[in-house]
Amino acid sequence: MSDYQVISSSDLSHFTISVFKAIGCSSADAALAADVLIRADLRGIDSHGVARLEGYVRLFENGRINTKPNITVSREKKAIFTMDGDAGLGLVVAPRAMETAVEKTHMFGAGYGSVRNSNHFGIAAYHAMMAIEHGYIGLAMTNASPLVAPTFSRERMLGTNPICYAIPAGKQAPFILDMATSAAANGKLEIAERKQIPVPEGWLESKDGLATTNPRDLKDGGYLLPLGSDKDHGSHKGYGLGALVDILSGVLSGASFGPWVPPFVAFLPVLQGMPGKGLGHFLGCMDIDGFIDRKDFLDRMDQWIERFREAQPQSPGQRVIIHGEPEAIMQAQRAQEGIPLIDKVRAGLITLAEKYKLEHPFNH
Amino acid sequence: MSDYQVISSSDLSHFTISVFKAIGCSSADAALAADVLIRADLRGIDSHGVARLEGYVRLFENGRINTKPNITVSREKKAIFTMDGDAGLGLVVAPRAMETAVEKTHMFGAGYGSVRNSNHFGIAAYHAMMAIEHGYIGLAMTNASPLVAPTFSRERMLGTNPICYAIPAGKQAPFILDMATSAAANGKLEIAERKQIPVPEGWLESKDGLATTNPRDLKDGGYLLPLGSDKDHGSHKGYGLGALVDILSGVLSGASFGPWVPPFVAFLPVLQGMPGKGLGHFLGCMDIDGFIDRKDFLDRMDQWIERFREAQPQSPGQRVIIHGEPEAIMQAQRAQEGIPLIDKVRAGLITLAEKYKLEHPFNH
Repeated sequence: MSDYQVISSSDLSHFTISVFKAIGCSSADAALAADVLIRADLRGIDSHGVARLEGYVRLFENGRINTKPNITVSREKKAIFTMDGDAGLGLVVAPRAMETAVEKTHMFGAGYGSVRNSNHFGIAAYHAMMAIEHGYIGLAMTNASPLVAPTFSRERMLGTNPICYAIPAGKQAPFILDMATSAAANGKLEIAERKQIPVPEGWLESKDGLATTNPRDLKDGGYLLPLGSDKDHGSHKGYGLGALVDILSGVLSGASFGPWVPPFVAFLPVLQGMPGKGLGHFLGCMDIDGFIDRKDFLDRMDQWIERFREAQPQSPGQRVIIHGEPEAIMQAQRAQEGIPLIDKVRAGLITLAEKYKLEHPFNH
Repeated sequence: MSDYQVISSSDLSHFTISVFKAIGCSSADAALAADVLIRADLRGIDSHGVARLEGYVRLFENGRINTKPNITVSREKKAIFTMDGDAGLGLVVAPRAMETAVEKTHMFGAGYGSVRNSNHFGIAAYHAMMAIEHGYIGLAMTNASPLVAPTFSRERMLGTNPICYAIPAGKQAPFILDMATSAAANGKLEIAERKQIPVPEGWLESKDGLATTNPRDLKDGGYLLPLGSDKDHGSHKGYGLGALVDILSGVLSGASFGPWVPPFVAFLPVLQGMPGKGLGHFLGCMDIDGFIDRKDFLDRMDQWIERFREAQPQSPGQRVIIHGEPEAIMQAQRAQEGIPLIDKVRAGLITLAEKYKLEHPFNH
């Protein structure tokens, strides 16, 4: 394990806001974007937090991010709408779209928005969980850098295209399913590569279409496998879910889709002949109270969670984990104790601080 | 392979309608229920077609199906609603709910319905595809007989809980993703058991929590594994998707959920202390034209499909399969040439014919 420095979330937030302001974001947008990133770190999704701040800045420096976007609803019909993010940070565009979905839900019981001309939006859970603050059910998906090959192919055609549902409970922590539709999220490969350890077979294949356990093969022309890993174990389902996310986020909104999705990772090129603008998201919200008495629902969710937690363990000492529970525990802990930043991430943040002449709280 | 008899879909439909009428369904309900089953056979989903007719009749004989249901919308708020199926056939209740979702979509751009007090609804694709007839996007999910153990458990807590999305295209066949959230659908195990062949590791485990390739172990107290098969390969995602379906179909509607879902398969008992009525579905519909010009969308879907079909093959001779394409080809073929029924299925249908004194088109 690397050495690390523990930083309070407020210090980290303060610095992150200053970076977003330095590249031209308004104070409000900088605070929102920082909140999305810090939430990832708080929840223990370290791959999607400030570790990616350099990546967002790189996109800005390459002219791919508009830090003063005019975000508009370009089309709508009652509960549904399309939003154009004007090449803004996905960290800002997606929450704006979710706000609109929430407003639609106040009026129509549900709100669903497809978003084009956006960029990488951070953790899907941030956006879906905005619905929970209103007592609603939230949904967030996005297409992403093409890294996954469909079943029977060795070409990178889909992103790890996550799906997130956020569902409130009563006494229990909310149910938050936030999953890549690949066998493993790219962040897990990044961690293995950093630690120089092999990954399980079934996560990726090399550029020659061969099984490999070397995470480095992804950058060397290889590709990730869909959830299910191989046809016998249902990789066509993982590929189908990734395709669904691509269609709802990209085809439906007017964004780019499939292999043309403009990449976030630096090792993929931006392709010519894009069929749409930027990348796409799909966000949704539903009012529980239109289906069932809200109090009754929260009690039933608690019953569901308690029953699943008590399911007979596979082996002694194990127990079933409820989606969102480990992240809720981590968030409470890190809010109090601070966020550990490993050397490599801290070095990247110091580089940003020096480049943009910003004060920072990091040890050299 | 068994011997088989080829029956025209109209002869098979005629007989199936007569069975549903014999157990008390109205002519309209019998025709609808038969249409759902025959569509499965036409599309090549043999496990979910008339092969299950005996199962539905068994539920009726056990007093679990009301063949004269009073199906009602019990709660609603603009675009969203809950339907009570009054213990009717899921084959009838789900299309009724989908009709309501379509009407909501005419009015509000989207329609989402949660359904309780229903029964097994056949193939999810039938219901989701009802939206396509209106040029809409359709969604269908259902909870089901508890057969799947969550990650880190050996207890059957979830059904194979399918998710289906139906999305229209232009010149191309529609995109129809219809997938169980387990590594393998129960139908595949039934087929392997009938043929007495082993299944891949990663589909199920024995009642002692051990890896097995014997499909028979499921009935002997074993359990299916979620999509992903093991933790290293993302089984927590398959479990999460199955949980999501259970929550939207069961917890949200007021149906039973988790291990209490009243089973369709005869080898599971009906549990006491059910937290709701019958099993549950979740159905939805969205108007493409509220997001994007409809013609533009259909062209973009064709482009998406054509690009994916051309993706570089993993091995020579392979090609990427678009979801829904094989079933569309099969449906065109079987509509013309008839539906092959294997001995075991035909024998079951003859038993029904004799029990209810019905004319039938089957060879002994």
